[in-house]
Amino acid sequence: MSNSVVQNGSVVNLPIGFRFLPTDEELVVHYLKRKVFSLPLPANVIPDLEVFQLNPWDLPGNLKEKRYFFTEKKMNLTKKCSKSNLNTDYGYWKGTNKEKQILAAPSNLVIGLKKSYVFYKREKGRGLKTQWIMQEFCLVGSVTTPYSTQGDWVVCRVYQRKRRARNHKSQDLGDQTTSCSSGITEVSSNELDQEASSSPRY
Amino acid sequence: MSNSVVQNGSVVNLPIGFRFLPTDEELVVHYLKRKVFSLPLPANVIPDLEVFQLNPWDLPGNLKEKRYFFTEKKMNLTKKCSKSNLNTDYGYWKGTNKEKQILAAPSNLVIGLKKSYVFYKREKGRGLKTQWIMQEFCLVGSVTTPYSTQGDWVVCRVYQRKRRARNHKSQDLGDQTTSCSSGITEVSSNELDQEASSSPRY
Repeated sequence: MSNSVVQNGSVVNLPIGFRFLPTDEELVVHYLKRKVFSLPLPANVIPDLEVFQLNPWDLPGNLKEKRYFFTEKKMNLTKKCSKSNLNTDYGYWKGTNKEKQILAAPSNLVIGLKKSYVFYKREKGRGLKTQWIMQEFCLVGSVTTPYSTQGDWVVCRVYQRKRRARNHKSQDLGDQTTSCSSGITEVSSNELDQEASSSPRY
Repeated sequence: MSNSVVQNGSVVNLPIGFRFLPTDEELVVHYLKRKVFSLPLPANVIPDLEVFQLNPWDLPGNLKEKRYFFTEKKMNLTKKCSKSNLNTDYGYWKGTNKEKQILAAPSNLVIGLKKSYVFYKREKGRGLKTQWIMQEFCLVGSVTTPYSTQGDWVVCRVYQRKRRARNHKSQDLGDQTTSCSSGITEVSSNELDQEASSSPRY
C-alpha cells in the first residue's frame, strides 16, 4: 500500500500518505538545476518525456495526482520559457502570457520562471478548454550557461484543476462543486486570447 | 534539507519534495482507524494535541503547510462529528453544518465523516473571519464500537486557505491574487450563519 522511490541508488519505501509534492522552489533548485548540470537528483522520481506532444490523459502516472516530467526544449534567446502553442493529436497546449519568477532562498535571486499552459481539445474548428493544466519551469540567467551539458531541460507539473462553483456563496469555501457537467468549456478565439492573459492558478 | 519520519521504529529520510499529504481516505483508514484500535500506524507523523483549545498559529509545525493532529473528543450519541463552537484565547473555531462522508475502497462503505471549521478572531464583540480552516475526521458506524479502547479520537487537518480573487476573469486560473489585504473579513452574526451552511473547500 505504500509507494517506493529510488534515493541514492537504493529503494526507500514511503509510508502511506506521503507523496511527491515539491514546492516550486524545491522543484527548480533541487531537481531541475541538478538535472541541467548532470548532478545526482534527490530521488529518481521525475521521468524524461516529451510531454507537449502528448494528450494530458495519455501521460504516465496517476491521473488524479500531480505528475512531474523533465522534457528537453529549445529556449528562446532571452532565456524565457518558450511560448509556442504545442499540438497533440487531440488538441493543443496553449500558453498564457504571464510568467512567475521562482526565487531561491536565502538570496531571493531569481533562479527560474514558471509558465502555465491550458489544454484545449480540438473539435469542429474550435478550441474546447479542458481542466488540464501544465506548468513549465525553466532555469533563467547565469545558471543556464555555459556549464549546462544536457541541453535546455525544463520540468513540468501536470494536473487537472478542480472545478469551481461560479456563485458567490459556494465559492467561499467550496471547490468540489461543479460548474458544468462536461468538464469542457467551449471558447471562441477571442476568449482564447483573454485566457492567455489570465494569471496562472498555482 | 530532507525530512525524516519514523516508520516501524526506524527513521526514514525522505528525499526533498516529499511530504505528508494523505487523501481523506488514507487519513481515516490508515491513520485514524488504526489509532482508535491501538494498532501500529504507518508512520509516527501525527502528534496528539488538544487542537480546538489553541489558536491555529500556535499549533506546532510549519504554518505554511497542512498540519495533522490527533485529538480526543467526545462524540454525540449519533456518532456524528461534534458541532460545538470551540473557544481559544483569541477567538473560536466555528463549525459548518455540512459534513462529507469518507468512503473506503473497494467496498465504498462509509467509514468516516469530515467536518470543517473556520477560525474567527474575537474583536469588539464581533467575529473576524480568518483564512484558517480545520477539518475534523471521525470514524462512524460499527467501526467505532465496541472494540475501541482509546476513547473517541478524531484526526484534524489544519491549514490556511489561499485567498481568491472575486472577479470573474482572474478567478478563471488565478488563486494567488488577494481579495483583501488584511486576511481577515469582518462578518456579522447573520453572515456567520450563512457561512455555516457553505460546503467545505477541501
